[in-house]
Amino acid sequence: MAAKKKQKQMKETILILGADGYIGWSAMLYFGVRNNGRVVGVDNYSKRKQMKEIKSESLIPIESMNTRIKSYEKMFNKNNLDFHEFDITDAKLLGKLLKTLKPTVIFNFAQMPSAPYSMLDLDHAVWTTKNNVIGNLNLLWLMKEHCPNAHLIKMGTMGEYGTPNIDIPEGFFEIDYNGRKDNLPFPKQAGSFYHWAKVFETQHTNFASKIWGLRATDLMQGVVYGVTTEESKMSNEVSNSFYYDGIFGTAINRFVSQAICGSPITPFGKGKQTRGFLNIKDSMQCFELYVMNPPKKGEYRVFNQLVEQHRTVNTLAKMVKRIAKKKGYNATIKNIKNPRLESEDHYYNAITSKLEGLGLKPCNFEEEIERMFDDLEPYKDKFDKKTLTPKVKWK
Amino acid sequence: MAAKKKQKQMKETILILGADGYIGWSAMLYFGVRNNGRVVGVDNYSKRKQMKEIKSESLIPIESMNTRIKSYEKMFNKNNLDFHEFDITDAKLLGKLLKTLKPTVIFNFAQMPSAPYSMLDLDHAVWTTKNNVIGNLNLLWLMKEHCPNAHLIKMGTMGEYGTPNIDIPEGFFEIDYNGRKDNLPFPKQAGSFYHWAKVFETQHTNFASKIWGLRATDLMQGVVYGVTTEESKMSNEVSNSFYYDGIFGTAINRFVSQAICGSPITPFGKGKQTRGFLNIKDSMQCFELYVMNPPKKGEYRVFNQLVEQHRTVNTLAKMVKRIAKKKGYNATIKNIKNPRLESEDHYYNAITSKLEGLGLKPCNFEEEIERMFDDLEPYKDKFDKKTLTPKVKWK
Repeated sequence: MAAKKKQKQMKETILILGADGYIGWSAMLYFGVRNNGRVVGVDNYSKRKQMKEIKSESLIPIESMNTRIKSYEKMFNKNNLDFHEFDITDAKLLGKLLKTLKPTVIFNFAQMPSAPYSMLDLDHAVWTTKNNVIGNLNLLWLMKEHCPNAHLIKMGTMGEYGTPNIDIPEGFFEIDYNGRKDNLPFPKQAGSFYHWAKVFETQHTNFASKIWGLRATDLMQGVVYGVTTEESKMSNEVSNSFYYDGIFGTAINRFVSQAICGSPITPFGKGKQTRGFLNIKDSMQCFELYVMNPPKKGEYRVFNQLVEQHRTVNTLAKMVKRIAKKKGYNATIKNIKNPRLESEDHYYNAITSKLEGLGLKPCNFEEEIERMFDDLEPYKDKFDKKTLTPKVKWK
Repeated sequence: MAAKKKQKQMKETILILGADGYIGWSAMLYFGVRNNGRVVGVDNYSKRKQMKEIKSESLIPIESMNTRIKSYEKMFNKNNLDFHEFDITDAKLLGKLLKTLKPTVIFNFAQMPSAPYSMLDLDHAVWTTKNNVIGNLNLLWLMKEHCPNAHLIKMGTMGEYGTPNIDIPEGFFEIDYNGRKDNLPFPKQAGSFYHWAKVFETQHTNFASKIWGLRATDLMQGVVYGVTTEESKMSNEVSNSFYYDGIFGTAINRFVSQAICGSPITPFGKGKQTRGFLNIKDSMQCFELYVMNPPKKGEYRVFNQLVEQHRTVNTLAKMVKRIAKKKGYNATIKNIKNPRLESEDHYYNAITSKLEGLGLKPCNFEEEIERMFDDLEPYKDKFDKKTLTPKVKWK
């Protein structure tokens, strides 16, 4: 396996922004174990605050960063993890850290990740835009100043592209128009203020690479599903968060949750939407492939990061229902009125050949969904069914 | 003339955001005279503050808004202009005004308009992004709440498109890719954080029209040149601002200024760049055409607003030199090192058929440049040559 083979060579100074999140904490553990240099996390704990705001919580209890890191140190007999609590929209604090740490790899996961949260009201739309876009803009400018050779790996989303009626290439496409040709950025058609903030970060990052010679990997990630990684399942003290509520929960994670707690599985609208999906362990493997295969100085490159995309939401709901039955749960499916404004029956074909080229070996989709039932079973009495219903409407 | 013919019918409640600016004040006068309803301006006076910050000033002295409006009332025997000083990034103040005024037409010119200013440093890039993008986001959300049927006319820029090697359509284009077709937003390739902020506003506005049914005209404006409009030239008390410095001054306005004050005319780099241009009076006529021909409910439409685009910057410099000679000034041309990162020799063909379809009758380009010499002559001893040099570099 490509990822495994190159493992021993990894000696980077890795900075992970958004280290407390679902992706961020998994990455802290993943690179902590595999990297022979420091792995430094930063977070403003906004997700923990947002959970209180929306009166929900991670289904799986999560420890403080301090406890998590102490536990990691004991479990793996390594002391290469650090954590700083601050907000990267504060340029002074971020600049100070970059100046002293001089990271060689920077992951920017410090983005509020929910479409419905950004659509709650004007204040939430504004906060999302500022938090995500200004945080990333600070980072770009301060990288130029303090660590211009670092490799930025930025979290984008497949949602930036929307659902065009043509194939979705990896960031750029060669087109022929009125008899002339050019290679241009693929048009963006995001579906929420959250998704637009991601588009803006993408556009800023591409521009910063061009003018300042920064090297950047921008990943258009599909919807991530799954509960544990190899490391996070080893002890409750290093558990990862798991959200199933109507605001921060995502499709498959919610479907499995609904099946376990006896609520109907609820595709939105007609349920003929198609999206890209990948397991949280696939996501980690992708990150490692980017670190081991960095872009050239001044290169800005885009990966469509997903492994499953040819089933509709209805088909996924049926698959979860079937697996639920095998695990002893009698699930039902009920399509509900779509709270979003989106096409419910559309073409979808994202090109993913670049990750295949780097040697990604994805997990088995059905096996991983089955594993989710095992991972969540111990928490089945903790679900708060009230929070399952999506309440934020686009119109 | 189409614009004239329909003049008598105009009875709108017009809100002009950014009413103190070069475009904004001209529009206040233009619609004040022609509209039979109220014309209400809002500005945070940021341009006057920025002039102090960069140690420059408008070549033509400008009065306070109070004096300008009082003078307008006397000159035209009308009292339909109002002005409020506040910042539209303050959603409470903007919401209160929309709620009470219930405008039928809203111009959003409340954007910091300079690429170099946005590239000064991180603080200026962040300020530009927040000021322009959050101001417009507030406006969209508050229009939905208080005046969902109003017609938003938003100031974009041709600079959003960059210089693609293909024709530039009006916002959207029909493409054929891998054997399938779609009509998609034209890709954006902005060249500064200012230009990117404009792109983000455009993307938010299109999205808001889609989800909330707002009607919007988004104008991708070329570089505006010219000193006076029919109204602003009538009295010193209603004069419009004129900027020629290296940060806020734009190509033709700067070339004429350089010719008058005896500094060389300075195209950037090779000078083979091509851009779209239009006179400030053309700009006003375009606005009137949009007001008289509004989009349908829920329609978002884009106009490429320019009238001249087939001469390089070098050719324009030579034209200004020739006209200067006729007016008694012995101008020279000196290409200087390009402070920006931009293509200096490229294809450029923007499609402008929609404005032609509405009946735009543009001014004569050379005549208007000649008129600029007459308009600026009284101020020729006021130029501060030091501020002419562009000091902000992209790299």
